Amino acid sequence: MVERVEKAVQDFYPDEIAWCYGCGRLNEKGHHFRTGWLGDTDQTVTYYLPRKEHAAVPGFVYGGLIASFVDCHSTGSASLALHKKNGLELGEGEVPRFVTASLHVDYLKPTPQDVLLKAIGRVEEIHPKKWKVFTEVYAGETLCAKGEVVAVVMPDTFLKSSK
Amino acid sequence: MVERVEKAVQDFYPDEIAWCYGCGRLNEKGHHFRTGWLGDTDQTVTYYLPRKEHAAVPGFVYGGLIASFVDCHSTGSASLALHKKNGLELGEGEVPRFVTASLHVDYLKPTPQDVLLKAIGRVEEIHPKKWKVFTEVYAGETLCAKGEVVAVVMPDTFLKSSK
Repeated sequence: MVERVEKAVQDFYPDEIAWCYGCGRLNEKGHHFRTGWLGDTDQTVTYYLPRKEHAAVPGFVYGGLIASFVDCHSTGSASLALHKKNGLELGEGEVPRFVTASLHVDYLKPTPQDVLLKAIGRVEEIHPKKWKVFTEVYAGETLCAKGEVVAVVMPDTFLKSSK
Repeated sequence: MVERVEKAVQDFYPDEIAWCYGCGRLNEKGHHFRTGWLGDTDQTVTYYLPRKEHAAVPGFVYGGLIASFVDCHSTGSASLALHKKNGLELGEGEVPRFVTASLHVDYLKPTPQDVLLKAIGRVEEIHPKKWKVFTEVYAGETLCAKGEVVAVVMPDTFLKSSK
C-alpha cells in the first residue's frame, strides 16, 4: 500500500493558482505533490515516487527533483500552518498561497530510485506573512536530504500578471 | 537568435553518467542544460528557455525549475573549472563529474515565462574535490535569482551502484 495524504492543501488552492509544475493539480505535466498534516501532529507530510527519468545517475534520484519536492512541500506546509492559525480547517474559507523567498537543501546521502520519498516538515512563523519550513526527506527509513525554506504569502502582483 | 553554448561540458560526460534529468544528454525527457565558459572569461554560462508547463503561476517560472537550473549549471561549472585546472581542454581526457552537496537559491524577483534564462557562474575552489559555485540567474537583463552550490567530485559509490 502506498502511503498518501488524504486531505492535501493543494486540493484547495483556487483554480487560477493551481497550475504549479510541482504541485498544481491542474498542471497535467507536473508532479502533483500533495501536502497535508501528518496525522494529529504539528508536522506536515508530502509523499512522492520519482519517475524513472528523474535520475541523477542511474539508480539515484536527481537533486533538482528533490529541491522541487522540498520547495512545494514547504510552501504547502506554510499554507497549512497559516490556515490553521486563522482558525480554519481545509475546506473552510480560502487557503493562503505562498511563494518561495529562499530554498536551501543539504544532500546527505544519495537518494535511491524506486523508493517512495517522504518529506516531513516543521513550520515556524517569522512574521504573519513569512514562514520558515524545516524539512527532512526520507527514502524509506533513510534520511537523504534536509531542506530549509523561507516562504512568503504570494504577493498580489503574481495574480495580476497572470490575468 | 537564441544564445547557446558552443562547447558544453555535458557533451563530454562519459555515457554512463550522462543520464541526469537536468543535464544528461542521453535522458530523452530531461532538460538538457548545457554549461560552458562565457567567451574568454573565467565565468561559466548556461542558457535555458523553460517550457510552458514549467510555471509557478501562469506567467512566471516555477522555482523548482530554477533550482534545477542552478544545480546542474553549478556541477557543470565545477567540472569545467577542475578540468581547466588539470590543464585540459574539453575533448582532452575525461571531464570530472560532480554531485551537489548543498544548494541554496534566493528568489529575488518573479521570473517571467517565455524569456531565455541565463545562469552566470563564478567558481571557487575550497578543496581539490570540493568547489563552490556562485550563480546569477537572469531573465533577459533582469536578475531574478542567486544561487550558491557546494559541489563535490562524484564518489565511486555512485557508479558502482548504477552497474
